[in-house]
Amino acid sequence: MEESLLHKLRRDYQLPLPKVLRHLKEISFNKSEPSINTKDAEALKNLFPKTYGQPIVSATTDRKETQHLKKALRVGVVFSGGQAAGGHNVIAGLFDAVKNIDSQSSLFGFLNGPSGIIEHQYQELTAERIALYRNQGGFELLGSGRAKIETEAQFESSLKVALDLNLDGLVIIGGDDSNTNAALLAEYFLQKGCLTKVIGVPKTIDGDLKNAYVATSFGFDTACKCYSEMIGNIARDALSAKKYYHFIKLMGRSASHIALECALSTQPNYAWIGEEVAAKKMTLKHITETMIDLIKKRADAGKFYGIILIPEGLIEFIPEVKALIHELNTLKEMSNVREKLSKEALACFDMLPTDIQNQLLLDRDPHGNIQVSLIETERLLIEMIKRSYAEKFNPVNHFFGYEGRAAFPSNFDSQYCYALGFVAALLVDAGLTGYMCYVKNLTEHVEQWEIGGLPLTMLMNLEMRKGKMKPVIQKALVNLEGKAFQLFSRKRHHWMIEDNYRFPGPIQFFGDKALTDTVPVTLTQEIRD
Amino acid sequence: MEESLLHKLRRDYQLPLPKVLRHLKEISFNKSEPSINTKDAEALKNLFPKTYGQPIVSATTDRKETQHLKKALRVGVVFSGGQAAGGHNVIAGLFDAVKNIDSQSSLFGFLNGPSGIIEHQYQELTAERIALYRNQGGFELLGSGRAKIETEAQFESSLKVALDLNLDGLVIIGGDDSNTNAALLAEYFLQKGCLTKVIGVPKTIDGDLKNAYVATSFGFDTACKCYSEMIGNIARDALSAKKYYHFIKLMGRSASHIALECALSTQPNYAWIGEEVAAKKMTLKHITETMIDLIKKRADAGKFYGIILIPEGLIEFIPEVKALIHELNTLKEMSNVREKLSKEALACFDMLPTDIQNQLLLDRDPHGNIQVSLIETERLLIEMIKRSYAEKFNPVNHFFGYEGRAAFPSNFDSQYCYALGFVAALLVDAGLTGYMCYVKNLTEHVEQWEIGGLPLTMLMNLEMRKGKMKPVIQKALVNLEGKAFQLFSRKRHHWMIEDNYRFPGPIQFFGDKALTDTVPVTLTQEIRD
Repeated sequence: MEESLLHKLRRDYQLPLPKVLRHLKEISFNKSEPSINTKDAEALKNLFPKTYGQPIVSATTDRKETQHLKKALRVGVVFSGGQAAGGHNVIAGLFDAVKNIDSQSSLFGFLNGPSGIIEHQYQELTAERIALYRNQGGFELLGSGRAKIETEAQFESSLKVALDLNLDGLVIIGGDDSNTNAALLAEYFLQKGCLTKVIGVPKTIDGDLKNAYVATSFGFDTACKCYSEMIGNIARDALSAKKYYHFIKLMGRSASHIALECALSTQPNYAWIGEEVAAKKMTLKHITETMIDLIKKRADAGKFYGIILIPEGLIEFIPEVKALIHELNTLKEMSNVREKLSKEALACFDMLPTDIQNQLLLDRDPHGNIQVSLIETERLLIEMIKRSYAEKFNPVNHFFGYEGRAAFPSNFDSQYCYALGFVAALLVDAGLTGYMCYVKNLTEHVEQWEIGGLPLTMLMNLEMRKGKMKPVIQKALVNLEGKAFQLFSRKRHHWMIEDNYRFPGPIQFFGDKALTDTVPVTLTQEIRD
Repeated sequence: MEESLLHKLRRDYQLPLPKVLRHLKEISFNKSEPSINTKDAEALKNLFPKTYGQPIVSATTDRKETQHLKKALRVGVVFSGGQAAGGHNVIAGLFDAVKNIDSQSSLFGFLNGPSGIIEHQYQELTAERIALYRNQGGFELLGSGRAKIETEAQFESSLKVALDLNLDGLVIIGGDDSNTNAALLAEYFLQKGCLTKVIGVPKTIDGDLKNAYVATSFGFDTACKCYSEMIGNIARDALSAKKYYHFIKLMGRSASHIALECALSTQPNYAWIGEEVAAKKMTLKHITETMIDLIKKRADAGKFYGIILIPEGLIEFIPEVKALIHELNTLKEMSNVREKLSKEALACFDMLPTDIQNQLLLDRDPHGNIQVSLIETERLLIEMIKRSYAEKFNPVNHFFGYEGRAAFPSNFDSQYCYALGFVAALLVDAGLTGYMCYVKNLTEHVEQWEIGGLPLTMLMNLEMRKGKMKPVIQKALVNLEGKAFQLFSRKRHHWMIEDNYRFPGPIQFFGDKALTDTVPVTLTQEIRD
């Protein structure tokens, strides 16, 4: 009984491919649009002299002869950062594509994240081994890690392994930071005359790595469906028991994409969106009062239960808390903190419950910064409410995160990732470097999906990091003017006092395609932005 | 988009029925065995003069003529206590059965738990309304509650509504306490000459309401599958990230049935079983050392991650903690607690982290008792380990409970509950009172399931409650001599250092029956006990 039946059955799931990917030998890439990055163009041009200004490319099968003679490829691949469902399918797609291009092609997996590149830890991947991981969650085929290739020695070591293995391509599956790293590596390889092409694949459950071409990062769909299953279950429990307020914090770093998607899927009584809190310059007091107002109105309606969603990043979006965290981060010494804070920061600090104060003072990351993601916002909110509201109120707190990162990928993530793997292989084959794979038209049938590559430098700007201006891919925040937020904004008033909970249930892999092959709600909306 | 597609599709799920239930008019009940309750026989005979000593009955369709002429029935039904998946199907089964017996039959639902009986809050259930809740999670068709029918006035009020509605039967869907209440009500009605039959249905996710006839309570399967999905997802994440120890507490009250079932389903590195801790008289120190030993051995193997399951009831099974809780519960005043405790209790108290100490002193239930279920055992364990282990150790804590109580019922719970509803109707129709429904042979195909009734008094003994000897249905604990625990005991050594995680994935409702129609692992084992 070591392997579950679903584990076995998912391996046999037959993945549909976009029409454009049916005959790989007929594919070539058009330069579809010039890449524009107006904000820090000059600075980026200096940082990326070899790769800045490359065009966006899109695949076509129109031409009779291809631009490029397909030949055996040698490609390396690595997982970087936190787990996201579908990662194994990127590798399966990459493998199938390079083998389809030429059966003599080789795929090497670097182990435990980018440190596998630096330390030359890798293994050649075989069809038999990959077969075990098709449509499976997790990153355990290779492991992952958060190491960055930063120092000159690390770049040199990366170059060495690329040359030793005679790699045509190196595919980095990661989030914004990892794709920035991919861009730097692409530039470095070119400058050193190394022919290894570096390609990034957009991965993160947080959904904050997206743009006009990349409608979503992979893993977002599965994570949201997994959290929504649990939220729906808890909502149904609340509706029956009628006695608990469930405060549910959701993973997702700064941006509130996951909270927004889960809110549209489950229709809770309230869902905080960090970006809105920032735009409205809300204070902790205002947030607490909003909650108490809701609780009172529901009590008037005879309801002493509810479902509240809280994005992990909420705390950073409250201007006064953000300022307090900033001040605390700049302090060298934590003794007599109250005397060192500005009047405003002190007022905010004093408003916080003791254990949250202690968390701010004691739990620091290796750089001495406050670990915002560890702050228990769900408990903070509960404590703040309790302090000002003495009526009947039974809160329960939850935090969902790890439950959704390594789940069996939804059909959408399975299909999307498999296609992304193909795109990565084709971009390498086309001799392109410093590109992120994209798959477009994701709300259409898989058949209709379009593919191409985006120059990574196009996604960048310069930001201050550890006292230096660094190129970074900006995180996409929830667009308050966008169709997804507007839909939420129109509907949420009907969720506050009336209960219009929606119960999505567990992800289904068999049966009606209308059930098994759905895309995120926010995606169906954002496509119209 | 208010209703999810799964929500709609589940309503149409065609429930299979046991062969014995195909022709209701041919069913009669045999007195299959005398009921034996040796322990407190005399006292129970005094408490239940009218209902003590009734025989166990089993359904048969062998006889040509039935014992009882089927006629239109008037039945009341109530949910009592915490949610368990499948409750709505008990009502659907009950409804279909009484209507099948006679189309003029009526079903009344009492609202928000037993208080609906006491306060005469009910509604007549229609086919249209029940149709909306078929195969759905939660108890929201009627709501539930934890009120007990205890005082003379409450018994009188219950009698009044039974007479006013001219009920042939009253079906109480609940756990051990609620079924005890059902027995008292059955006896009371008989003593008052009221013809309303009272029937109990075994409900609780905790799995602690079972015996030779009732192999499992409903809701246990779905809850365990729901928690196991999440545990498997987290295990896969841990295996990829390789940096966190996840301490996962599982709901389930005193007994460790849920932890055992989830352990067999997911194969974590360690799973505590409260009953074993009690049998081995383990101390907090011993438990902490066991954890540290595991962490060290895994560190030696280069592993800095792991999955630990903790049953909610663990804390009560540690003899020294149990003694401490007992002493604290007897204290009238919480000031200067340290001076009032015995030497042993004080030693245990002093070993606890400050916030757990505060929890023991401050968080009391309305009776002034410590709320054991609120003690954060998962955090306690982490703190105890950290205190004695200074090496690399990144713990994350989780608590799964509300996520699994109101989920879409698994096919097993859907089918089991539907059959239980039929059995309840048939026992009422047969004129039996003070019985719990049973469905046997649950590990066989539904076709082969057998049905009958158990006298509730047979399940009882007398226990001290609030200073008085009260009849109670004893909670079934994990049997350390049983096949399920023995299987776990044989296998667990291979899970500690090697990682043999199993990933069950989300409950599936469509496709291969081997995937959709499974029973709990513990059930397949216990059936051989």
